Amino acid sequence: MSVVGIIAEYNPFHSGHEFLLNQARLLAGNDPIIVIMSGNYVQRGEMAIMDKWSRAKAALQSGADLVFEMPFSTSVEPADLFALGNMELLKKLGVETLVFGVEDDNLNFEYLGKRIAEIPQKHMDFRDYSQTYSTQYNQMVAREVGYEVNAPNAILGLAYAVANYNLGSPMSLYPVNRIGVGHDDLLKRNGAVQSASAIRNLLLHGEDTSQLKTWLPKLEAKELAEQEIYPNWNLLFPFLKYRIESESVEDLRKIYQMSEGLEYKMKQEIHLARDFTEFLRRIKSKRYTYSRLRRLCLYTLLNITYEDMVKSFNHESLMLLGFSKIGRQYLKQNRKDFTVEIVSKVDKRNAKDGSIHLQVRVDRLFEQIMHVDQNFGQRPIEV
Amino acid sequence: MSVVGIIAEYNPFHSGHEFLLNQARLLAGNDPIIVIMSGNYVQRGEMAIMDKWSRAKAALQSGADLVFEMPFSTSVEPADLFALGNMELLKKLGVETLVFGVEDDNLNFEYLGKRIAEIPQKHMDFRDYSQTYSTQYNQMVAREVGYEVNAPNAILGLAYAVANYNLGSPMSLYPVNRIGVGHDDLLKRNGAVQSASAIRNLLLHGEDTSQLKTWLPKLEAKELAEQEIYPNWNLLFPFLKYRIESESVEDLRKIYQMSEGLEYKMKQEIHLARDFTEFLRRIKSKRYTYSRLRRLCLYTLLNITYEDMVKSFNHESLMLLGFSKIGRQYLKQNRKDFTVEIVSKVDKRNAKDGSIHLQVRVDRLFEQIMHVDQNFGQRPIEV
Repeated sequence: MSVVGIIAEYNPFHSGHEFLLNQARLLAGNDPIIVIMSGNYVQRGEMAIMDKWSRAKAALQSGADLVFEMPFSTSVEPADLFALGNMELLKKLGVETLVFGVEDDNLNFEYLGKRIAEIPQKHMDFRDYSQTYSTQYNQMVAREVGYEVNAPNAILGLAYAVANYNLGSPMSLYPVNRIGVGHDDLLKRNGAVQSASAIRNLLLHGEDTSQLKTWLPKLEAKELAEQEIYPNWNLLFPFLKYRIESESVEDLRKIYQMSEGLEYKMKQEIHLARDFTEFLRRIKSKRYTYSRLRRLCLYTLLNITYEDMVKSFNHESLMLLGFSKIGRQYLKQNRKDFTVEIVSKVDKRNAKDGSIHLQVRVDRLFEQIMHVDQNFGQRPIEV
Repeated sequence: MSVVGIIAEYNPFHSGHEFLLNQARLLAGNDPIIVIMSGNYVQRGEMAIMDKWSRAKAALQSGADLVFEMPFSTSVEPADLFALGNMELLKKLGVETLVFGVEDDNLNFEYLGKRIAEIPQKHMDFRDYSQTYSTQYNQMVAREVGYEVNAPNAILGLAYAVANYNLGSPMSLYPVNRIGVGHDDLLKRNGAVQSASAIRNLLLHGEDTSQLKTWLPKLEAKELAEQEIYPNWNLLFPFLKYRIESESVEDLRKIYQMSEGLEYKMKQEIHLARDFTEFLRRIKSKRYTYSRLRRLCLYTLLNITYEDMVKSFNHESLMLLGFSKIGRQYLKQNRKDFTVEIVSKVDKRNAKDGSIHLQVRVDRLFEQIMHVDQNFGQRPIEV
């Protein structure tokens, strides 16, 4: 038995995630499976398709014992910071084993993590502005460790491994092959597994939602099918446009990650772009990935400065979204030893600063779009 | 003959305004009638119902010779600053007579203006926070000059008179009774005159627009009836809400006219208010009028700081919206003597600072709502 941790977005939660939880249960036994899940904003720089409470509920009903909300200052960050922030939080919760999905579990993550962590920092100071940082990073890793990693989950897995090593290897790493890829192609052909992005696309294009129940837990599928609005950048674009048009370049420059004159580029292109996709294309350069620019747009939309991000990062609490019996028991016994504050209820006091303050602030727009309160008045889900 | 000036909003232009222009023509003869008209935002703190180009065109087709756009830093201000700013601009254009509509032209505006202007400043430092500034101002004026002025146009007329006196009385004042009030009630019963606010209400409530042509010049009536969107605070409320929710109180405090903790009040109430009217009611106190608060909401929506306003005010140019033959002739002969810069075409250079910079910025939201360019690429209307 082992306290198991999972880092997730569940955007939305689907049968592939359920499979991973089942694998985690085999390891955990009567110990808890602890999930840190993104809140209402996800790593690629957009709103989640479904609110955090519904996604947490689906995970709890499928076997998670504790679901915590990932602070915004960790969830909307590039892979390395995303990984480091979450691994540190899992460590503070006493997690012993990290379970994560990969395309190929034959990779030796512990070994590769150590090798990459030991690459001298100066090798990572990329000066080729005609390529994105992540391309150069991946090429450098390939050169240094003699193995090129391209698959998205493996890249994230490596980031977990590097973070784990840098934190003193508090966890053992347990990669699990994602079903629906490799030797599980049969399952995919049977239609039991669909990727989260394919599910989001189906919802955003207004396609038939009756298929949802083959890929998602039934209750979640029903809830998602009945949801009136699916958050997406097209809905948010008028606000982004309004923000950029009404802000001075001086104020835009204060936005987190606004660099190298992107504030001028944004000011110039926003007036010409008819939609978000066109806007992104107009501000795209060889130097930055779409993910990086999408996150920058999200920081701009949410008016997040470097200072806001640092204040949150320096005081990250974990908001408890829900728990099972095992989860409650674990919390009760270990809470006093945690080196991170657990918040079960947002109130004026804990919303005054730190990550809860930022969370309340960024969720305001989500609430405005979705008409459902996300923080004040909400209590953790019990299953 | 006399160079005649008119200060107007034309929101929208209607037969009452036409009547005033006809009266002005009797005074002007072959001299020009010069109108300074609000741009796309009006004094009571909202977007105009129709864009500035259409409103200027209606005025030109009804007898105005030159129509200039009032800078935002003068148009969205309380009556005294509105009056002073505009009178100063008219003076710079060489205007000799100010023609303005009032409810009762028997008032001696020149005399009252002088009397009010001579009231010691210390009598105007009102400390009764249970009443609005304007109520206290009007009461004080009544005490000092022995005559209570309540009618809205008379109050504005007095503000012109005070400003004129303070500027060294460059203009003679020519009040004209508004038709549709007093002895002109017959006209009103005949239905030929309707107030601008009644016309706006009709449009905003989606009522039958076939009546418009009895109150407005035909071409304007047609254009207005065909307009797809009528700007109003309900349309803008989502942006205001988004702005207030995403802004820190520190940044809200920088907004022009944000005072006495209103930033906290706004932050608190915005989350509870379902629409703009409710929001205004929630932030209302005895100290401030609805107009003052509506303007504050507009500054907030448009992200206008004290500094932005001062920068614009200290460098006000007049944007030429249109001209007649008489107007062009007058411009040609006198432009070199004007002590205010006339802008016939917005370009990158003149949009860099001053009032044109602010104008371009605030019009961005108008453009976003209305989908019609308001500055770049537009040229003055010739009639």
